[in-house]
Amino acid sequence: MFAPLQNDTFIRACLRQATDYTPVWLMRQAGRYLPEYRASRAKAGSFMGLATSPDYATEVTLQPLARYPLDAAILFSDILTVPDAMGLGLSFALGEGPRFATPVRDEAAVAKLEVPDMDKLRYVFDAVTAIRKALNGRVPLIGFSGSPWTLACYMVEGAGSDDYRLVKTMLYQRPDLMHAMLAINADAVAAYLNAQIEAGAQAVMIFDSWGGVLADAAFQTFSLAYTDRVLKQLKRSHDGALIPRLVFTKGGGLWLEQMAKLDCEVLGLDWTVNLAQARARVGGRRALQGNLDPHVLFAKPAQIEDEVVKVLESFGQPHLDAHSTGPTHIFNLGHGISQHTPPESVEALVRAVHAYSRRMRTGTPH
Amino acid sequence: MFAPLQNDTFIRACLRQATDYTPVWLMRQAGRYLPEYRASRAKAGSFMGLATSPDYATEVTLQPLARYPLDAAILFSDILTVPDAMGLGLSFALGEGPRFATPVRDEAAVAKLEVPDMDKLRYVFDAVTAIRKALNGRVPLIGFSGSPWTLACYMVEGAGSDDYRLVKTMLYQRPDLMHAMLAINADAVAAYLNAQIEAGAQAVMIFDSWGGVLADAAFQTFSLAYTDRVLKQLKRSHDGALIPRLVFTKGGGLWLEQMAKLDCEVLGLDWTVNLAQARARVGGRRALQGNLDPHVLFAKPAQIEDEVVKVLESFGQPHLDAHSTGPTHIFNLGHGISQHTPPESVEALVRAVHAYSRRMRTGTPH
Repeated sequence: MFAPLQNDTFIRACLRQATDYTPVWLMRQAGRYLPEYRASRAKAGSFMGLATSPDYATEVTLQPLARYPLDAAILFSDILTVPDAMGLGLSFALGEGPRFATPVRDEAAVAKLEVPDMDKLRYVFDAVTAIRKALNGRVPLIGFSGSPWTLACYMVEGAGSDDYRLVKTMLYQRPDLMHAMLAINADAVAAYLNAQIEAGAQAVMIFDSWGGVLADAAFQTFSLAYTDRVLKQLKRSHDGALIPRLVFTKGGGLWLEQMAKLDCEVLGLDWTVNLAQARARVGGRRALQGNLDPHVLFAKPAQIEDEVVKVLESFGQPHLDAHSTGPTHIFNLGHGISQHTPPESVEALVRAVHAYSRRMRTGTPH
Repeated sequence: MFAPLQNDTFIRACLRQATDYTPVWLMRQAGRYLPEYRASRAKAGSFMGLATSPDYATEVTLQPLARYPLDAAILFSDILTVPDAMGLGLSFALGEGPRFATPVRDEAAVAKLEVPDMDKLRYVFDAVTAIRKALNGRVPLIGFSGSPWTLACYMVEGAGSDDYRLVKTMLYQRPDLMHAMLAINADAVAAYLNAQIEAGAQAVMIFDSWGGVLADAAFQTFSLAYTDRVLKQLKRSHDGALIPRLVFTKGGGLWLEQMAKLDCEVLGLDWTVNLAQARARVGGRRALQGNLDPHVLFAKPAQIEDEVVKVLESFGQPHLDAHSTGPTHIFNLGHGISQHTPPESVEALVRAVHAYSRRMRTGTPH
């Protein structure tokens, strides 16, 4: 059904296999910093107009690949499609973040929640298949979802928050309700990611964007445990290919040892984490993804190259033994790319990652 | 000049000396969650009206002490008084955060910066002396300042920010300008804190509220190094008493080993940090302060007590040897108290800290 994969560097690095260079892709690489994205969005009329149309989703997913030799594509969608399918009424006001018409704030609202019929998310799976076809084997396609906790944050707050007061109040005052919601979210996310895999996603990533707002102990209980519940339900392979699973907790650097026990292949790291230390803490058990500060892309190309080299050197040489299970590195930002990023900065970044990481492997970095 | 200190529990814990119980105070303990504070603010007309009047500052600093048996008072002021004295024009619009009329965004603006005449901050030192007198030796008074980096964030952004794009652009694009600004900030903060000590502050705290937004390596270069520059200039004692120095970096948990090398007595921790692990990482070298999630105070009193016990048990028993240099714990929140906090929650918290920590010391916690 799909063309064979030509550039498998990203998949190999996820599986801790040797690669000729360090693969690179960027969180939110299809986005507002690209003029062609803004043009597509204007045509579609809205963000959800883009995300719900397989044609538009394909168009914008491929835009950064037309500019830069990135090693993976990521489905263009939103992390909140699942609660939207639960009936919470997702909308995006212009210039603002997402908003739910009916947030979940009491026992009655939690009691009404259930794993949504995946048919309501058909537009996402159709987009996955359309993008995979359009990629024609060039690079792998990553599917994704928000984590159960991150979805719960939006579901309770009803929108982005700067203090998470409502969701944390529920967590501390009614942990029973929070656990009930998270269990449903986890099962819904698992079904959602499995359907993306069946539709053609070659790797899947769980974004725990707001795990880092939790206190120690609360993180393990209310975020990590439910990410684990998702992972345990995911398909390991499809159509004869292994499906790598990536987990990214923004602000989760302190919990890396515990995250390393998750049943996944790759841990994403934000820019506060020292990659050499992270590698020592995780050992050879997981590939690491990250972690350039997205604001480096506001510097000049020579400065961007210097910062890229620092990240690559911080991770160091991948130590691949005869059994090909050494730790590996996937280059990325530590968070989504800023909408204000000059597109030429991304060119400097991708070029520097590829060139310097090739030289590292041949022992002639300088 | 001042009455002798009656309750020295906080000072003793800062200096890693034995105490009968774990002292407790709360960041932003004099604030909007108290109806009497809101009444004072209404009388004063504005936040700066409160902060610039020694009488009002004394009134609101003492308000939480009238309600709760807290073990320290903290100067009522703002972290941005120093850049205001540099001429940047601080204001607070109702319901919004602080704003500077003339942010520092280019070489010309940085060139104009200098350590301000401390006479412009006389109102702060007058408030310190007035509060110290009014406390009449009941508990010690903590003075404070923003860290050089945290001040720079506001000085460049001109207001709070959710992405720190402008200050990070300057950092990555013009590190020379950033270093010049931070050196001036550090020397200004040192002069400011020394003047607070001379006016009567019995401990001083540096709030690096935004250190945690920095990437690894950038934190050490642009925040930690300048906090160190402040600490190296601070008076160690005044009027025959040692002056403990506290440093709090929100989101700094990953850098604890490096922070432990700072020349200070106490490290403040936010709620993402596991206290037992922090204690192991820091060793006996520093007292630790923190770190209850402020949102716990939205739960019911029995739940608050449970969470207080978890924090106390996580730190564990202070191990004080014959030379009285074991690690010690000062109970606090992991961040400022929320304005929406029910005042009775604070009562439950303070009572639980005192009662349970006394029982821990006598070996009868349950």
